[in-house]
Amino acid sequence: MNYNANLNPRITDEQIFEKITEEQESIGYYNLPFQNTTQIKEYAKTVKQKDIAIIGIGGSTLGTFAIYDFLRRSNSYDKELHFFESTDPIDLKTRIDCLELENTLFIVISKSGTTIETISIFKYLNTQTKIDKNNCIVITENDSKLNSYAKKNDIKTFEVPKDVGGRFSVFSAVGLVPLAIIGIDIDSLLKGCKKVYNSFFQKKEFYKPMMTKARFIAEYKHKFNINVVFSYSALLKGFNQWYVQLWGESLGKLDNDNTNQGLTPIGILGPVDQHSFLQLIIEGKRDKTVTFIKVNDFENDIEIPNYKLEGLEELDYIENIPFSKLINYQADATIRAVQDLGDIPCDTITIDKVDEYNLARLMFGYELLTSIVGQFLHINTYNQPGVENGKIILKNKLKNRK
Amino acid sequence: MNYNANLNPRITDEQIFEKITEEQESIGYYNLPFQNTTQIKEYAKTVKQKDIAIIGIGGSTLGTFAIYDFLRRSNSYDKELHFFESTDPIDLKTRIDCLELENTLFIVISKSGTTIETISIFKYLNTQTKIDKNNCIVITENDSKLNSYAKKNDIKTFEVPKDVGGRFSVFSAVGLVPLAIIGIDIDSLLKGCKKVYNSFFQKKEFYKPMMTKARFIAEYKHKFNINVVFSYSALLKGFNQWYVQLWGESLGKLDNDNTNQGLTPIGILGPVDQHSFLQLIIEGKRDKTVTFIKVNDFENDIEIPNYKLEGLEELDYIENIPFSKLINYQADATIRAVQDLGDIPCDTITIDKVDEYNLARLMFGYELLTSIVGQFLHINTYNQPGVENGKIILKNKLKNRK
Repeated sequence: MNYNANLNPRITDEQIFEKITEEQESIGYYNLPFQNTTQIKEYAKTVKQKDIAIIGIGGSTLGTFAIYDFLRRSNSYDKELHFFESTDPIDLKTRIDCLELENTLFIVISKSGTTIETISIFKYLNTQTKIDKNNCIVITENDSKLNSYAKKNDIKTFEVPKDVGGRFSVFSAVGLVPLAIIGIDIDSLLKGCKKVYNSFFQKKEFYKPMMTKARFIAEYKHKFNINVVFSYSALLKGFNQWYVQLWGESLGKLDNDNTNQGLTPIGILGPVDQHSFLQLIIEGKRDKTVTFIKVNDFENDIEIPNYKLEGLEELDYIENIPFSKLINYQADATIRAVQDLGDIPCDTITIDKVDEYNLARLMFGYELLTSIVGQFLHINTYNQPGVENGKIILKNKLKNRK
Repeated sequence: MNYNANLNPRITDEQIFEKITEEQESIGYYNLPFQNTTQIKEYAKTVKQKDIAIIGIGGSTLGTFAIYDFLRRSNSYDKELHFFESTDPIDLKTRIDCLELENTLFIVISKSGTTIETISIFKYLNTQTKIDKNNCIVITENDSKLNSYAKKNDIKTFEVPKDVGGRFSVFSAVGLVPLAIIGIDIDSLLKGCKKVYNSFFQKKEFYKPMMTKARFIAEYKHKFNINVVFSYSALLKGFNQWYVQLWGESLGKLDNDNTNQGLTPIGILGPVDQHSFLQLIIEGKRDKTVTFIKVNDFENDIEIPNYKLEGLEELDYIENIPFSKLINYQADATIRAVQDLGDIPCDTITIDKVDEYNLARLMFGYELLTSIVGQFLHINTYNQPGVENGKIILKNKLKNRK
C-alpha cells in the first residue's frame, strides 16, 4: 500500500488569482467599471430639484456618502444630498427640516425592496409632502416589492443587479444615479475603477502589492485581528465608514470549517485621532495592522500665516507652512513613530488629488482587496447570514405587539 | 527555614475601591461634580455672539461635541457651536465659511497651551478677522504659554486644572463654558455626575455592577480585546467618539511589567450598523464584548403612518408604530440575537430621556469605569506617553524643513 498526501499546502498567489478570476462569472461588482452610463447621465440632466433625499441604509448609502463627503467641500454643486437612514425619531425630524420639501427629489434605494428602515421612513415622508412620479425615483432589484410599487405608480426605476451585493454596489446605479444628479463625474469614477481592475487582472503594478497585503492579513489573522485605516484628511470620514462596512460584513464569517473568522475594521482620522486612538496603537497590545492614507495635493491650499501671538513665540516655527504640508508632516511623523517600534505592520497609500478618479481607485482597490482576503480565508465574502436571526426576531416582535 | 507567600492573589473589589478612593487626591476629575459654576454661568449670560467657534482638538472638543450632538436636535438654541480641530485645509476653509465672522466668539482651548493644530488654526483665523478681547476667550492651564498670550492681550481666561487630564475634562471649564454659552443646563450635567459619584462611593446601586463589569473586562482582556459600544440613537454619535478616546487613550498602555496592554474601543450606531458591523459581531471571532445603549423616551415622537404603498402591502405590519418604539424593538431584537449565541458577553444601559442629567450620568459613569478598569490592569490611566515620540519627530521635521 502506498499513501501520499499534501493536505495543508500553502496556497499560491496563482491559485488565488484563478479563484478571483472565476468569481467574476457570479459576482457582479467586477463588471461595473465597464457599464454604459449614458442612461444615468441623460436622466441626471433632467432633474430640476435642488434637494436630493436618499432614503436607504447600509450598502444603499455608505458608498455614495463616502464619495460625496470627499468631494463636496472642494466643489460647488448646486444640489445637495441628504441621507435618511436612521429610525431615530429626533434625527429623522431634524433631517426633514433641512429639506425644502417642494423642491426635493426622493430616491428610495433598497436592493431587496423591503428594508424595514427604508420603507418606514418613506411611508412617513409620504405624509409630509405629496410624493409621486414627479419627485421620486426608485433603485432596487427588478423583481422586488419596491419595484412593484414603482411600476404601479409609474415611478422611474434603476436596477440593482442581483449579483451585486449592497456593500459592493457603490459603482452601480445605487451610487452613480444620485452622484450624477448633483454633478459628480461618474465616468471619471469608473475610469478609476478600470485602472485598478486592469492593473490587477493584467498582473501589473497593483497585482503583487495586493496579493502580498491580502496574504499577510489572512495569514496573521489571529495575531493581528484588527485592521486600522488611519486617514489623514477630514474628507475621508465617509470613506472610513464605508470601509468598516465592506471589511466587517464581508470578512466576519464562519469559514468552511465552521470556525468564527473575523478581521475587525477600524477607521480613524488624522490628525484628530493622534489625540485619541494613537496612544492605543503605540503602547497597546500588538493586535493591529495600520494602513495610513494620505492626500498628496489638496489644491487651493492655505498657509499658516506669519502672524505673531505675543507670549506664544515658542511656536513661531510653524509659520509659513501650508496646511496641506502640515497635515502630511503630521502623517509622516506618525508613520515614522509607528515604524520605529518595529513590531506593528503598517503600509501607506497616497492619493494624488481630491477628485473622482483618485477616490474611485482607492475604493475599487479596497473592494478587490476584500475579495482576495476572503479567498485566502475560505469564506463567502458576499453574503451576510449572521444578521438574519435579528430580522426574524424583529419581525415577530412587530407583528405580535399589543 | 520557613517561606510562605501568596504572590498572585486575586485582587478584591475592596482593594480596588481603596485605590480609587486614594486616587481622588491626585486625579482632579473626581472633584468636578462639586465645583461652583457661578462664574461660568455669569460669563455665559454676557455673550452676545451667535456663532461660537471652538478651536481645540482631542480632549478639548470631543466631550463638548458629545453633549452638544446629543441635545442640539431636540432643543432650539439660538447660538451654534462650530468645531475647529483638523488641519485639513479644505475642511478648515469650509468650516470658516459657515461662520458669520463679525458675529463669532472664538474659544481657544488647549490644556498645554501649545497644541500645534490649535495654534496653527488660531493664527490663520487671526488673518481672517480681527480677534481680540471682545471676541475671544481662552481655556488653558494657568501657567501655559497660551495663558501668557491671553494675559498680554487682556483676553478672558478660564482654567483647566493641572490634575484634570484632557480626556477627563468635559465637566471642567473645557466643556462647561461653551455649553453654558449656548444655553445647556450645566448644573443638570453636574447633578448627573454627582448621582453616579455618590452611588459609587457610597457603595449603592452602581457600585456592584461597575466593579463586576470592570473586573470582567480586565480579567478577559486577552480573550475579549475589543469593547464595542452599540448605541441605538443617532444622537449618540458624538458620545461614541468621546468613548473611543477615553477608553483607547486611557487603557492602551504599558503595564507595570512593561507589557503592552490594550482594550480596543469601537463605537457603532443602531440601526444603521445592523447593516454593517453586526455581521462581524454575530459570525466573527469571539473577541468582542458588546454594550448596548438605548434611549427610553425620545419625547415629541413621530409615528409610522397608516399610509398604503401599493405593491408593498407585505410591510403593512409596521404601520402605527412610533419610531421610538421601532428603534427600541430593533435594539431588543439585536440584543436577543446576540444573547442567543451564548458566547458573546453583552450588557445594556438604558438612558431615560434625552437631557443633560441623563447623558452626564452615562459619561461620568464611563469615566469612572475607565478608572476602575485601569486599576485592575495596573496601568497609569491618566497619561499618554505613547504619542510623545511622534510629536518630537514632527517638531524636528517642521523646524528643519527647507
